[in-house]
Amino acid sequence: MLEHQQITDLIRPWLQEDIGRGDVTTRAVVDPELAGRARIEARESFVVAGLSVAAACFEEVGEGSLKWLPEVADGEAVEPHAVLARLDGPVASILTGERVALNLLQRLSAVATLTSRFVEAVAGTGAGILDTRKTTPGLRLLEKYAVRVGGGSNHRFGLDDGILIKDNHLAVAGGVALAVALARNGAPHGLRIEVEVTTLDGVTEALGAGADAILLDNMTPEMVAEAVKTAGGHALLEASGGMNLGNVRAYAETGVDLISVGALTHSAPAVDISLEVETE
Amino acid sequence: MLEHQQITDLIRPWLQEDIGRGDVTTRAVVDPELAGRARIEARESFVVAGLSVAAACFEEVGEGSLKWLPEVADGEAVEPHAVLARLDGPVASILTGERVALNLLQRLSAVATLTSRFVEAVAGTGAGILDTRKTTPGLRLLEKYAVRVGGGSNHRFGLDDGILIKDNHLAVAGGVALAVALARNGAPHGLRIEVEVTTLDGVTEALGAGADAILLDNMTPEMVAEAVKTAGGHALLEASGGMNLGNVRAYAETGVDLISVGALTHSAPAVDISLEVETE
Amino acid sequence: MLEHQQITDLIRPWLQEDIGRGDVTTRAVVDPELAGRARIEARESFVVAGLSVAAACFEEVGEGSLKWLPEVADGEAVEPHAVLARLDGPVASILTGERVALNLLQRLSAVATLTSRFVEAVAGTGAGILDTRKTTPGLRLLEKYAVRVGGGSNHRFGLDDGILIKDNHLAVAGGVALAVALARNGAPHGLRIEVEVTTLDGVTEALGAGADAILLDNMTPEMVAEAVKTAGGHALLEASGGMNLGNVRAYAETGVDLISVGALTHSAPAVDISLEVETE
Amino acid sequence: MLEHQQITDLIRPWLQEDIGRGDVTTRAVVDPELAGRARIEARESFVVAGLSVAAACFEEVGEGSLKWLPEVADGEAVEPHAVLARLDGPVASILTGERVALNLLQRLSAVATLTSRFVEAVAGTGAGILDTRKTTPGLRLLEKYAVRVGGGSNHRFGLDDGILIKDNHLAVAGGVALAVALARNGAPHGLRIEVEVTTLDGVTEALGAGADAILLDNMTPEMVAEAVKTAGGHALLEASGGMNLGNVRAYAETGVDLISVGALTHSAPAVDISLEVETE
Amino acid sequence: MLEHQQITDLIRPWLQEDIGRGDVTTRAVVDPELAGRARIEARESFVVAGLSVAAACFEEVGEGSLKWLPEVADGEAVEPHAVLARLDGPVASILTGERVALNLLQRLSAVATLTSRFVEAVAGTGAGILDTRKTTPGLRLLEKYAVRVGGGSNHRFGLDDGILIKDNHLAVAGGVALAVALARNGAPHGLRIEVEVTTLDGVTEALGAGADAILLDNMTPEMVAEAVKTAGGHALLEASGGMNLGNVRAYAETGVDLISVGALTHSAPAVDISLEVETE
Amino acid sequence: MLEHQQITDLIRPWLQEDIGRGDVTTRAVVDPELAGRARIEARESFVVAGLSVAAACFEEVGEGSLKWLPEVADGEAVEPHAVLARLDGPVASILTGERVALNLLQRLSAVATLTSRFVEAVAGTGAGILDTRKTTPGLRLLEKYAVRVGGGSNHRFGLDDGILIKDNHLAVAGGVALAVALARNGAPHGLRIEVEVTTLDGVTEALGAGADAILLDNMTPEMVAEAVKTAGGHALLEASGGMNLGNVRAYAETGVDLISVGALTHSAPAVDISLEVETE
Repeated sequence: MLEHQQITDLIRPWLQEDIGRGDVTTRAVVDPELAGRARIEARESFVVAGLSVAAACFEEVGEGSLKWLPEVADGEAVEPHAVLARLDGPVASILTGERVALNLLQRLSAVATLTSRFVEAVAGTGAGILDTRKTTPGLRLLEKYAVRVGGGSNHRFGLDDGILIKDNHLAVAGGVALAVALARNGAPHGLRIEVEVTTLDGVTEALGAGADAILLDNMTPEMVAEAVKTAGGHALLEASGGMNLGNVRAYAETGVDLISVGALTHSAPAVDISLEVETE
Repeated sequence: MLEHQQITDLIRPWLQEDIGRGDVTTRAVVDPELAGRARIEARESFVVAGLSVAAACFEEVGEGSLKWLPEVADGEAVEPHAVLARLDGPVASILTGERVALNLLQRLSAVATLTSRFVEAVAGTGAGILDTRKTTPGLRLLEKYAVRVGGGSNHRFGLDDGILIKDNHLAVAGGVALAVALARNGAPHGLRIEVEVTTLDGVTEALGAGADAILLDNMTPEMVAEAVKTAGGHALLEASGGMNLGNVRAYAETGVDLISVGALTHSAPAVDISLEVETE
Repeated sequence: MLEHQQITDLIRPWLQEDIGRGDVTTRAVVDPELAGRARIEARESFVVAGLSVAAACFEEVGEGSLKWLPEVADGEAVEPHAVLARLDGPVASILTGERVALNLLQRLSAVATLTSRFVEAVAGTGAGILDTRKTTPGLRLLEKYAVRVGGGSNHRFGLDDGILIKDNHLAVAGGVALAVALARNGAPHGLRIEVEVTTLDGVTEALGAGADAILLDNMTPEMVAEAVKTAGGHALLEASGGMNLGNVRAYAETGVDLISVGALTHSAPAVDISLEVETE
Repeated sequence: MLEHQQITDLIRPWLQEDIGRGDVTTRAVVDPELAGRARIEARESFVVAGLSVAAACFEEVGEGSLKWLPEVADGEAVEPHAVLARLDGPVASILTGERVALNLLQRLSAVATLTSRFVEAVAGTGAGILDTRKTTPGLRLLEKYAVRVGGGSNHRFGLDDGILIKDNHLAVAGGVALAVALARNGAPHGLRIEVEVTTLDGVTEALGAGADAILLDNMTPEMVAEAVKTAGGHALLEASGGMNLGNVRAYAETGVDLISVGALTHSAPAVDISLEVETE
Repeated sequence: MLEHQQITDLIRPWLQEDIGRGDVTTRAVVDPELAGRARIEARESFVVAGLSVAAACFEEVGEGSLKWLPEVADGEAVEPHAVLARLDGPVASILTGERVALNLLQRLSAVATLTSRFVEAVAGTGAGILDTRKTTPGLRLLEKYAVRVGGGSNHRFGLDDGILIKDNHLAVAGGVALAVALARNGAPHGLRIEVEVTTLDGVTEALGAGADAILLDNMTPEMVAEAVKTAGGHALLEASGGMNLGNVRAYAETGVDLISVGALTHSAPAVDISLEVETE
Repeated sequence: MLEHQQITDLIRPWLQEDIGRGDVTTRAVVDPELAGRARIEARESFVVAGLSVAAACFEEVGEGSLKWLPEVADGEAVEPHAVLARLDGPVASILTGERVALNLLQRLSAVATLTSRFVEAVAGTGAGILDTRKTTPGLRLLEKYAVRVGGGSNHRFGLDDGILIKDNHLAVAGGVALAVALARNGAPHGLRIEVEVTTLDGVTEALGAGADAILLDNMTPEMVAEAVKTAGGHALLEASGGMNLGNVRAYAETGVDLISVGALTHSAPAVDISLEVETE
């Protein structure tokens, strides 16, 4: 779940970005006292995510004067013409808040929808679908929430809530064993230590160094299967690199614990949603 | 061009989002004094946009200690393995800044690349490719810049730098003529007045009302051609709705002035770019 | 109308500027529980503007505990001793909020009052009275609101919601025709293009270049009349420079569309308003 | 003196207010690489104040690329056509920063000029000219600086750096003696205690209560002269209310220590200053 | 009293510091809908301070959904096991807000407790116990409030609400007389002028210069007694330096007005307070 | 190591808190052009921490004009009269920055000093000394840095970079096994799962649930020794509750991995440090 205050803090600068000094069109042509209704409607099939974020946009713009009446919940799959929510109150506020609310709803639903496809693709294998830090700058909290809505789970939220020793670190750190030891000593307790490897020797080395988790980068499913055998449950294994809906099941069937997919957040095309003001 | 200060103000919270209380991995395993080099490299073909934004990320993280050496310029088309830029300085700062810099470069290049395809598709027709307000919350300035890099031009930056009377406004405003008159009286001088219409009658009505520009929403190319004739140069015409690389030329050949495409900013899949630390 | 949230965001730092670490006098000598009433009273004749801004100051300081009871509305002309509003609630909050509230009310009413004099002076001519960007730093939104309250209308709110090519631009831009062409290509659609000229030749040149509006700078009424003839309705004409209550009607009678007056916002002397705590 | 950092912190939101998403005119019509010169010039006689504030505006906008060459110093009296400062560097930055810089320079010079007239009017009497808290919201630090530049001195900067028990406090506080005692006990040491009185009895009461300073509100010069005698140097005396250039000397000659004048900051009409870009 | 808004503004970044991107433990293991009760309990004897600050933490975290039921008031002395307050509402919010609330309550109560010991130690002498600027960065307003709760009074809140000419100033300012004269001319009216001296000659010099208050630094009680005689009530006297519970009464009995104690805020060890969630 | 930018962001509001509208004393009595030197000097024995934080205070206040010349490094033990650093530049800036710089240096050195005593007390046992979240609001990053300077290591920095299921969580979460399972599923990968227990049965339960670490709360050294045996290296063990310099070695000798001590950050009394301006 997202905290209401976190959402509000996030959306304020975004509303400011769109509204600037004020919605000059609406101010000029719509009576500020005019009350009305509007509906937010799906124009294709998708998994909904971000309703409370959209609601918060209208709450902010309307300063509490708009009623938000959701008709579905985050995580539900909807079909074209499904009404996601209705709004009731000053039409001017509905019009002013529309674009930012829809931009967010379209993007977060896109992330949830794409995630849910990956999750379905690996159904029954025991592998989890994981996001990455390849998120939209500023939207990480929301996009990672959308991943969870779509059935995925979350990797690190930032550089401070997990240790991941990557290839570029290893290039300068003097080897897996030393890097893991340094991380164990210097980093805050509470964080797992994960190491990225590209070979099966790397897996053995990481296990020997006591890594809590191993990221298997750009391996074939066969190599991943081998890594699973080697690890024997002594470390969490995460497969990563070049995952798509065509190949993800092959990876999942290797017995790997987690599969991380950058595309969930960096390449999900926006779903189509519209807002219609209703007149008698 | 983007102003340096605007970029810096934008990226600070994004770096904060990723770095949080600090890059615990790099702090633990990389000597803060260690200097080195890295290169940023294309892994597919695309039009580059956002180099100064990526540079600013490393400038911020390195507090000025990193040298940024661009090898291409925004707007250039690159092939796989092309080096976009090199970095020289503290490796720790390179590693800490990498993700946010790449996330932005991948997204902005994606927008420029998709825009350039639409621009090519209408080449020679005289029609301009226009963005919309369907941008990523928080990234509007950057994404609209990427549209220009890709050869497109910009519609409104927000609700305050242009008047666009849309269908939802008209539903409550009492007709095109009244709405245009209200906008002319109440809004700041300096803004054009554009009205959205969906029929040819609407075009005639908007012209009669003295609209400066008319948005032709979801019309067929044939209807747009008719609208062009009707307008006879007395208002700027913009076609919008359902544009894609397959149909955009047909619209462009109608003689319409502008074609706006939401997908430029809401659905361009990230291009693939990597950063490699170089060791001897 | 001003949005409540915009007002609140504006006044917070101003209250902070005055209150600092706290109103030490009131804390020391007034019982925080003591409830009472006060009235805000005109001490000269003027047009009221800014009541909701003053109300917001007391709302902020009183954190909602003060009742604000307006007795007049923005735009009304009042006479000495007229009560503008009454306050009911904790006296301590009334005293702490008084100065900032009055400073704003005195200044905004001054702007509205001066504007209304210019508007009266041109009554019946069809010319509109326009403000400029010569506003008090930080108060632009409020002062431009006060201009509207006084019957005037608004020019640009900033450098981004209108194109105005001024003498200094022309000095380096290579002539009117080129400057207008550059603006048409490079600037966001949605903005009108206005050019400043000082001669009748300039008017002709600007019309030829396709300018949407022309600022006639420091011309005599005779020259303005000539410009009106030359333009023949093909561009909006704005007269500017050295306007005062003595000469403004002569300009208005030329048939010019708009007359801009910097003094509306930079030189209106504060009107006199007091706050009186009422004791039985 | 004003601290450079304080100025920078103040002007940033004001530049943001004017520039918004960017100076679209200058971006479209002026080559960002074009270097040039400009001069800031007086168009009437006045006392200069705020040069470092104007300089800071150009420093911010130009991000350090503009050279600022002052030709006079704050506090100097200048005549029409005097050059206050020259600018050398990117013309685009000069044009973008011009308005905010001039708005501030015109206002602060106005405050200094009006103050200097009051100071001259009381020359030789020993009375000091004092400002009030009737300043422009957001500009207090600058306007109080301009008062000092004009030869005046400063009263409180806010509600927390001085105790001033006014009529409205006394109306609810139970009398002068009690109020002074409460202030002495409850307020931070380090602050003087000043009490506002309107009668000679009030002066006696305030002296008896041990007030450090007494504000003589709306008294005639004769009453003030009497108050000076009564006080006999045991408290600082400040005359206030209805001061103008016509009557201030009469007050000053009573022997009163300080005369406070709200008009210094709330009603000084802007002086006329222009910026001219210089071309060969 | 502390203003509610001031408290809220202070605690927000502190909650942010602790909560970061969210309380992952509570989110994972506690049902967000689960309501419950908790009590905040003393685990040693102390004087309570900061209840409204702790309440504000829970108000913020719970966004208004938690009921705060205080059982004691600031300033009361409590014994081990005393319940300070009860909380009623979502258990998740109680758990998330607990640490920051307790950290503040433990520290502020510590300051009040230590202050109250000094106040008791000087009881009946007429000397007041004063704090210093040796407070915790960011907590000055709260710690100075806690000093008042403990029966002490406040010295300056910052460098701008009182003039204190210290040894380091005198080292470069050319003597007490000159420094006092400069302060009297240049500083805002409303501020007392205090000078630090270390000898009895210094006292005489400060009196001669017209100082309003004199800080007697690191003097023995005998010297302070002598200073009291010398001053004869013509300036406020403050003893400072090396004060502890063992020697403070000796100083207080000299007749000095004020005794300032840095340890009140820089060295009071946290009192022990716990929060217990109550289950049936 | 602390990042320079993080320090700067932290200290700005603290300097603002102290300096407010400006250092009125220094402005009035010290020539702003006067250059000089000062030394920062220990007045008792302690371990130094926070030199770069103090340096940053002077850098901010002096806007780069002060030279900071450290004579020792963080982590060094110093004796009374040791010079920690010298300052060279405008005396006014030295005086204005002094208090905040010293307040921080005194507090951080206190934390490092107390930590080093605990570290020495357990020397040779293999147990690490750990901090807690009982830090000063706003100073967590700095105080945790000081703990590392003193030889300790860091527990969580906030509620988001580690999972710690405490007694209050368990009271509502339905037992250790369920809570650990919920945490494993719902929380971001990358975080260890730690559970607080108060009995040896709790240790067994936590091990069975697969906890990565176990917090042994308020156990005797004998119980801790038993827990160490039970765990047999399958989970990290942390002893906590009531630790002091008298009993900590007994705990350390049990073989426990970590000992956490709240007093490190909540009850270290400030060390004594002074700043002396040097005159010839």
